[in-house]
Amino acid sequence: MSGQFSPAFREELAALMRWRRDVRRFRTTPVPADVLARSLDSFRLAPSVGLSEPWRILRVETATARDLCQQNFRDTNALALDGQDGTSAQVYSRLKLSGMAEAPTQLAVFCDTATTKGRGLGAATMPETRAYSVVGAITLFWLALRAEGLGLGWVSILDPARLARDLDVPTDWQFIAYLCIGWPEQEDTVPELEREGWETRSSALQLELR
Amino acid sequence: MSGQFSPAFREELAALMRWRRDVRRFRTTPVPADVLARSLDSFRLAPSVGLSEPWRILRVETATARDLCQQNFRDTNALALDGQDGTSAQVYSRLKLSGMAEAPTQLAVFCDTATTKGRGLGAATMPETRAYSVVGAITLFWLALRAEGLGLGWVSILDPARLARDLDVPTDWQFIAYLCIGWPEQEDTVPELEREGWETRSSALQLELR
Repeated sequence: MSGQFSPAFREELAALMRWRRDVRRFRTTPVPADVLARSLDSFRLAPSVGLSEPWRILRVETATARDLCQQNFRDTNALALDGQDGTSAQVYSRLKLSGMAEAPTQLAVFCDTATTKGRGLGAATMPETRAYSVVGAITLFWLALRAEGLGLGWVSILDPARLARDLDVPTDWQFIAYLCIGWPEQEDTVPELEREGWETRSSALQLELR
Repeated sequence: MSGQFSPAFREELAALMRWRRDVRRFRTTPVPADVLARSLDSFRLAPSVGLSEPWRILRVETATARDLCQQNFRDTNALALDGQDGTSAQVYSRLKLSGMAEAPTQLAVFCDTATTKGRGLGAATMPETRAYSVVGAITLFWLALRAEGLGLGWVSILDPARLARDLDVPTDWQFIAYLCIGWPEQEDTVPELEREGWETRSSALQLELR
C-alpha cells in the first residue's frame, strides 16, 4: 500500500472514531486469539518517545489476579462515591463504571519508567512522555479493536500502587490503565456518561491564538 | 454508517498506522484551513476521563511566540546533548529533532488539570488520566492528519514550565505537547530514529500472564 488515503477512507476513519466508545457492558463470549493478536499489533506501530517502546502488558487471567483487581475497583469506587455530594452521588451510584466482572479479556498496562531503550531521547525534561507513549499505543489498540467489532473499557477507578503490588510488577513499572475487552452488549455513538446524564460533549473546539 | 467495518478497512487502518511517522522535515506550503479544521474534529470524538475534555489548544502563529518556543527547544536540546556521552553524543548531534523552524502550522497543547467538567469521575486516585485523555486525542488527530497526507512532529525537548510562562497560559494548564504540522518532505514506513541508527523497533510484543 502506498501511504495515500482516499476521501472514502477518511470518512470511514471518522466513523470509526465516532463509534469508538468506552465500553462497560460486555458479552462473555471469548475473544478469539487471532483477533486479539492482530489488534495488539497496533502497539508495535505506535509512536514512542525516542523509540523507547516503554509499554509493558500483563494479561490478567487467573481468578486470584482478577479478584484482587476487582476488589481494588470496588474499594476505590466506594471512596469516589463518598466524595460526590447530593444529586451527583445519586447519579454516580447508578453508573456502571467497569466491566471487570464480565469482560472475557483483561489487560493491565504499565510504563517502564527506567527503560534504557531510546537512550533517554526526548524524555530528559519531560520524563512523563514515556507514559504518554503508552497512552498513544493504547489509543491505537482501541481503534483496532473497534474495527474488529470489539469494545474496550478503560478502568482508572483504581488504587495504582495497590494494583502494581497485587500484580507483582517491578518497582519501575508505572500503572497506566486497566483494559476490559470483549464484544459490547450494545453499540452507540453517544458516550454512556452522556446517555446517563452525567456530562455532555462540547459542541465545538476552541483554539486560542498566540 | 453502521459501525461495522470490513476486512479491507482494517487493512487500510493498519497501513495508516504503518505510514504514520513523527515528522521533523516539513515543506513550508501552508495547510489549508478546511483540512486542518476537519482533522481537529478528531479531538471532539476522542475519549476523555469522565467526559472531562481537558484539552486546551493554542495555535502558535506570531513570530514572537514562535521565537520563544524555538529558543526553548534550542536551549533544552543543547542541555540534552551535553547529557549524552561518546558515540551517543555524536549520533545525537546529527539528528534533526524538531521541525519548528519550518512547519507551517504549530500547536501547543495543554491539559486543564483544574477543569470541573466530568465532576472528577475517574480521576480521584489517578488525576494523571486527564493528561492521558489529551494524549489520546492527539493520537487520533495524528492519524486524521496522516490520512490527509499531512505529517505531525511531537516536540518534547522543551522546558515545560518556561513554555507555559512564555505562552502566558493559566497556572492550572499542564503542558503536554508541542505539535509541528505540515506536508512532510518525504514519506517512509521506518521511523527516522531507526533510519539514523539511534534505536530500533522491537520485533515482537511480549505479554506476561497473571
